[in-house]
Amino acid sequence: MTHFRYLSFLTDYGLDDGFVAACHGVAARIAPHAGLIDVTHLVAPGDIRRGAAVLAQTVPYLPPAVHVAVVDPGVGTARRGVAVQAGASVFVGPDNGLLSWAVTAAGGAARAFSLTNRELWLSPMVPATFHGRDIFMPVAAHLAADAELAAAGTEIDVRDLVALPAPERILRDSAAEGEVVTVDRFGNVQLAITAADAAQIGIQPGGSLLVQYANLRLAVPYREMFGAVEPGELVALLDSAGLISLAVNRGNAAQRLGLAPGARVLVTPAP
Amino acid sequence: MTHFRYLSFLTDYGLDDGFVAACHGVAARIAPHAGLIDVTHLVAPGDIRRGAAVLAQTVPYLPPAVHVAVVDPGVGTARRGVAVQAGASVFVGPDNGLLSWAVTAAGGAARAFSLTNRELWLSPMVPATFHGRDIFMPVAAHLAADAELAAAGTEIDVRDLVALPAPERILRDSAAEGEVVTVDRFGNVQLAITAADAAQIGIQPGGSLLVQYANLRLAVPYREMFGAVEPGELVALLDSAGLISLAVNRGNAAQRLGLAPGARVLVTPAP
Amino acid sequence: MTHFRYLSFLTDYGLDDGFVAACHGVAARIAPHAGLIDVTHLVAPGDIRRGAAVLAQTVPYLPPAVHVAVVDPGVGTARRGVAVQAGASVFVGPDNGLLSWAVTAAGGAARAFSLTNRELWLSPMVPATFHGRDIFMPVAAHLAADAELAAAGTEIDVRDLVALPAPERILRDSAAEGEVVTVDRFGNVQLAITAADAAQIGIQPGGSLLVQYANLRLAVPYREMFGAVEPGELVALLDSAGLISLAVNRGNAAQRLGLAPGARVLVTPAP
Repeated sequence: MTHFRYLSFLTDYGLDDGFVAACHGVAARIAPHAGLIDVTHLVAPGDIRRGAAVLAQTVPYLPPAVHVAVVDPGVGTARRGVAVQAGASVFVGPDNGLLSWAVTAAGGAARAFSLTNRELWLSPMVPATFHGRDIFMPVAAHLAADAELAAAGTEIDVRDLVALPAPERILRDSAAEGEVVTVDRFGNVQLAITAADAAQIGIQPGGSLLVQYANLRLAVPYREMFGAVEPGELVALLDSAGLISLAVNRGNAAQRLGLAPGARVLVTPAP
Repeated sequence: MTHFRYLSFLTDYGLDDGFVAACHGVAARIAPHAGLIDVTHLVAPGDIRRGAAVLAQTVPYLPPAVHVAVVDPGVGTARRGVAVQAGASVFVGPDNGLLSWAVTAAGGAARAFSLTNRELWLSPMVPATFHGRDIFMPVAAHLAADAELAAAGTEIDVRDLVALPAPERILRDSAAEGEVVTVDRFGNVQLAITAADAAQIGIQPGGSLLVQYANLRLAVPYREMFGAVEPGELVALLDSAGLISLAVNRGNAAQRLGLAPGARVLVTPAP
Repeated sequence: MTHFRYLSFLTDYGLDDGFVAACHGVAARIAPHAGLIDVTHLVAPGDIRRGAAVLAQTVPYLPPAVHVAVVDPGVGTARRGVAVQAGASVFVGPDNGLLSWAVTAAGGAARAFSLTNRELWLSPMVPATFHGRDIFMPVAAHLAADAELAAAGTEIDVRDLVALPAPERILRDSAAEGEVVTVDRFGNVQLAITAADAAQIGIQPGGSLLVQYANLRLAVPYREMFGAVEPGELVALLDSAGLISLAVNRGNAAQRLGLAPGARVLVTPAP
């Protein structure tokens, strides 16, 4: 009996080198039955928060899987490798917070293990620079194929897992302040403000909101689709992750507004 | 019985975000038997003609499949989603012309349906910003797995499908004028002029042609391979899609010539 | 009986066009049973040495496969296409040296065939510009599916295969001179100097080495992991391919040092 039909894989390895393929090869040798879904490998090098955001927003649409994620600037240092059970899936990667938002999105950590069992590694002695290939993927593939989760290593208290602070989000009576969570390829600027938050401060689709950051104040229509405004115009909408995003119809809002992940944006009903 | 063993997938989603993976996940959950071939996801945002050209030139080499293509600047507006049967394949995407050249290459539309049956969507209520994940891919996966084409929605007249104008191509007695259809990674400039067109105006492999655009006139040898000219020299050849392309052996013709898709080039026999 | 469960695929085709997908389609039609692992398609156009290095460093982690590699600036000229048996795998591509380092890594060429049998090509007559789609992939897929290696064409003497010169590497009593083999996404600079070479000239992990090139002399600590030095500091370590790499913890060594593939670096024990 195999445990999981799918693996997923997110890294900051890029697509220019053979790193992703080496990991695919390791998976194919250990768990040839498993389909492997690449989430992305273009997380900026070492950008744990970006990796965490993409993983958390994608995993809900993937089948139950062993999800491997590696954005790991501390590779080889004392930071642990972990396998975390959450919902119907298992998450494998460095315990640096990368997995935490996705684990939460999957229902929270039920059990967690430190990857101390070298029998599931690629070989007992591994160099300290490529744990994706040498530890995380082989352990994940064994878990997908035939190993019980507890075989991964020493059980740890799920409360000891490293968690990233959630994106900043402050609700007041008639204002919501939210961090920019991600900017996507189209330049859409995703805020840590939900549709429910917007409703609570009195902003409804069809209305307008006032966006403030730095010295700027902009009134932006709140609509359901890009095409509700003219090409080149700003629009706020409920994005595919359930958050308010600032967009430019057929344009790039991040460039227009000069906003990047981590920036804080204040949203109020437009007067 | 399953209907299609393969899905193919072309978008302008890019590879930095988790958008493509979310669609892969949706496909895996509905049609786990189906192999998924990514055509490209690097179409420039909203560039429908570029998407149409890549799709039409690639599909002839793919197995029979449900081909999903999404370059959809009008997502959420009144533009329809459609499923179109052509040859042994089905094409699914927005009815904005993106599919039209590939449908023609596959033998023309036999039947077409508007994607009005919400039972095949990811959920009855979907947000208006990510139809690739929420409508096109789930419908396509159902069609690959077990749904009849007619289950996709309301049948429409194939003559009502939106068709992109074909790339401009004018044949005269001894001259062919062709639009630049695509520029590839190597900088090869593909013209909407076929080998048969060239022959008709008196240009044969081994000869030379005169290329004119803007204020430029260049005599270019017409050969069968890049390596028939010295490195760094211009050559015209019959490309892998059956069209005349301008190339530089071990160089980049688009940069050299300043040509981009949409430009018009006049070709005559070199004197 | 099928011969190989996997194909692998490395090219300089890029990801913007449909070239890679067309090859996937060809493989799917001929060898639908075979999994296809993309090594990379972002080799710089025509950079045979880069392709050779990535292939050789990745293949050891892939399952037995027919490995297809195409970086082929001489496509259509007299250069042969070949199928080479090495270890448990077969390598298919142009005979321009691209395959040679990987063949060596796989144990050396046991048998080699020139791809002269047009029955395994996509069609008997192929244009001269896209042998990946029209010759290399269909031949490889047939070899994976049901064709014997000898069916690929005329047997050739393995000593006649084109071999790239190995990366320059000169060992003296207390100095090692090595070429930069690759630079990866993270800017790590891989030298053609092994851990054994370093040991032989008296450099051990925990010590320091003196790096010299151009007019520069830098003392660099030799450690086991990036995190052994402060962020922003240089470190030398044994990389995932078993070679000495120069890195910057959470930074980009190639940019810092101005080093690119082909440069020569002299390494001695730090005084």
